[in-house]
Amino acid sequence: MSWLSIPSDSHFSIANIPFGIISTESNSTQRPAVAIGDHVLDLHAFAKGDGFSGSSEIQKHVDVFSQSSLNAFAALGRPFHRATRSYLQDVFSKDTKNARILKDNQKLQESALLKRSDVKNHLPLTIGDYTDFYAGKNHAFNVGCLFRGPDNALQPNYTHLPVAYHGRASSVVVSGTPIRRPWGQILRPGNKVPDLAPCERLDIELEMGMFICRENEMGSPVPVNEADEHIFGYVLMNDWSARDIQAWEYVPLGPFTSKNLGTSISAWVVLADALENAKAAGIKHENELLPYLQEKKENNVLDIDLEVEIITAAGNSNHLSKTTSRNLLYSWPQMIAHHTITGCNLRPGDLLGSGTISGTESGTEGSLLEQTKGGKVPIQLKDGEERKFIQNGDTLIIRGAYGSGDSKVGFGEVSGQILEPLPLFK
Amino acid sequence: MSWLSIPSDSHFSIANIPFGIISTESNSTQRPAVAIGDHVLDLHAFAKGDGFSGSSEIQKHVDVFSQSSLNAFAALGRPFHRATRSYLQDVFSKDTKNARILKDNQKLQESALLKRSDVKNHLPLTIGDYTDFYAGKNHAFNVGCLFRGPDNALQPNYTHLPVAYHGRASSVVVSGTPIRRPWGQILRPGNKVPDLAPCERLDIELEMGMFICRENEMGSPVPVNEADEHIFGYVLMNDWSARDIQAWEYVPLGPFTSKNLGTSISAWVVLADALENAKAAGIKHENELLPYLQEKKENNVLDIDLEVEIITAAGNSNHLSKTTSRNLLYSWPQMIAHHTITGCNLRPGDLLGSGTISGTESGTEGSLLEQTKGGKVPIQLKDGEERKFIQNGDTLIIRGAYGSGDSKVGFGEVSGQILEPLPLFK
Repeated sequence: MSWLSIPSDSHFSIANIPFGIISTESNSTQRPAVAIGDHVLDLHAFAKGDGFSGSSEIQKHVDVFSQSSLNAFAALGRPFHRATRSYLQDVFSKDTKNARILKDNQKLQESALLKRSDVKNHLPLTIGDYTDFYAGKNHAFNVGCLFRGPDNALQPNYTHLPVAYHGRASSVVVSGTPIRRPWGQILRPGNKVPDLAPCERLDIELEMGMFICRENEMGSPVPVNEADEHIFGYVLMNDWSARDIQAWEYVPLGPFTSKNLGTSISAWVVLADALENAKAAGIKHENELLPYLQEKKENNVLDIDLEVEIITAAGNSNHLSKTTSRNLLYSWPQMIAHHTITGCNLRPGDLLGSGTISGTESGTEGSLLEQTKGGKVPIQLKDGEERKFIQNGDTLIIRGAYGSGDSKVGFGEVSGQILEPLPLFK
Repeated sequence: MSWLSIPSDSHFSIANIPFGIISTESNSTQRPAVAIGDHVLDLHAFAKGDGFSGSSEIQKHVDVFSQSSLNAFAALGRPFHRATRSYLQDVFSKDTKNARILKDNQKLQESALLKRSDVKNHLPLTIGDYTDFYAGKNHAFNVGCLFRGPDNALQPNYTHLPVAYHGRASSVVVSGTPIRRPWGQILRPGNKVPDLAPCERLDIELEMGMFICRENEMGSPVPVNEADEHIFGYVLMNDWSARDIQAWEYVPLGPFTSKNLGTSISAWVVLADALENAKAAGIKHENELLPYLQEKKENNVLDIDLEVEIITAAGNSNHLSKTTSRNLLYSWPQMIAHHTITGCNLRPGDLLGSGTISGTESGTEGSLLEQTKGGKVPIQLKDGEERKFIQNGDTLIIRGAYGSGDSKVGFGEVSGQILEPLPLFK
């Protein structure tokens, strides 16, 4: 329990302490912060006001809280993240041993404790490389059925390795950033020659994202049972997808322009340590995995409750989907082990996506493509509105959290509004 | 002609002036330089010694020559690159107007003019994103035949858009960096379950690389006829490929671990302006392209002579292949226009690869896969050695240049030796 008033069921309880990058109207410098209830603690101001003076270990590295991204903080490794989170939990605790630091320090509260509604969020880390996995087995099966029919839905490799492709880092944006409906090459049914047209099948992909904190040397794979130490934390992710463009371009080298139009992530990185209790069993493997993918820990997938909401241009708010991140066939350590098996070096700030997360039932799909059976069955919204795919002005919101009450660990949300396409340039 | 002795047929004639990042034994700071004959001009030392005092325009921005990468220099744009190259050409010219700058300045020659053999090269730019195209039509056809048979060799989209996939930026390394033979998942012929084993079909991909200098805003495609201004310069590229791993993993999302083991580039970036005369016609399109890919300039592919050499572990040197970069179906401006058509933002330092460049004749292949007909026909080397794919200890070298004599514009080389695989970790 905290001396600071934190609403029950807040995503940012004292059990969470997620990290992000903020700026404010009066101070446009981008700087680290943690979210706590309806507030954020500006870590730059906190450090400047001797907030970390209760820990000589953290004090040694306070320069990381003067950076405009969390990369330097992430690179200090999980023991340091753990120490910082614990220290801040104590600082906010009703029974803090260090009341002089913040609880009884009105001056530091004024400079460092800001209303969350008053801050602007920025991308939490500078992303070196972004890789998107395809570990949501139900999604892979559903989409495989639509693209290739049920017999070839899951390719033979799917149950042996976590399929993935390299994504586009430059177009990863923070929650709230609008996304422009793209133009692209589309092959219409029955045609042999493509058109250039605004995407007509614009979709979401409900995913979790994970940030790397520890570098592995090029040529040196990360063993699966050591991979946990390479995980900084997690975000929610919406990997916007232009389905009509994707269907035409994706053979033989995978999706390209259909995906690089934008990927949105939530603003606050929930530390790996904050989700230790959220570990659970994922989808069971029916075949034996190669040893480099075999984990000693059995329950190594996260159990995050996820939901999707659409707010239409008319302001009509509707729940679209509810699912859980247990719907993954591979865990994060397995993704890291596979990503590096041929020697690829991962670096602090690299972002890995889980792949789209869908359940098996109706109403648990992580994409509109699945929910509308490939755009054939419209989703009925309130007030007689319906959707096959996203329309201009629609805002899509993904929320996710673990637990409830005073120890809820949540991500807040990742949202994005779709803007009308540009007029075609000459 | 230069007052500095430059060997005839040097890749780094006064017509070239390529940019790179160097360090020396006595000064480990990584800093910009240009290559000229058998020398390099250390631009940090040159700027410090008032070398740019003959140009107020360049002098204003000399801080870019104190950076450890060329990104800041690149971001200043092509007019600035052009001015800097012209200025340095004059500085080295026999009839320079500014003899006091370097020609008659023994002190500055001593501090800034270094023997090329005494410098170490580093990655010339910090690479944000790396994208690999597939614009070498003959290669796409040859490999398509091997993977899918001649009927489906070129997919229907191939002649309508420059196929590409996002590659791995973190594992792009500079020429001379050894590459570790990777372990990976391989499905043996006749098996239904993959092995984990060291790659047995390790291959090269002979490519050109291009660096971006101008950013486009996310959501704003680059028109094809303005794309030239976004090109900083070019390098040679070897996109190492694990064919056995690739064949198993690449459906449905494209190559992943088979490619992220390493990509080598040559050390010196040849400016776009240095290759204006090298523009030539590429492979002719048999169908009409969509307007966003139609260029006003007809000859917009580069005509670089390319060759591949192998030096075996036994020290046995052999030419493998000769070809030209005219063997591309799409030009660099077309690749930029397509890359950004859905709104993807490119940033200074982003690297685009051409795709493997092969001719149509025997001895012009850009990969061993093609040259050995899928590993079936070994290449006969001197002294009775032969190769289907790369063996441990082999060094592969790609060289490339345009023109000859005193105005040759070359890239030097990109080389890499393959190290034996790691013992399997537990």
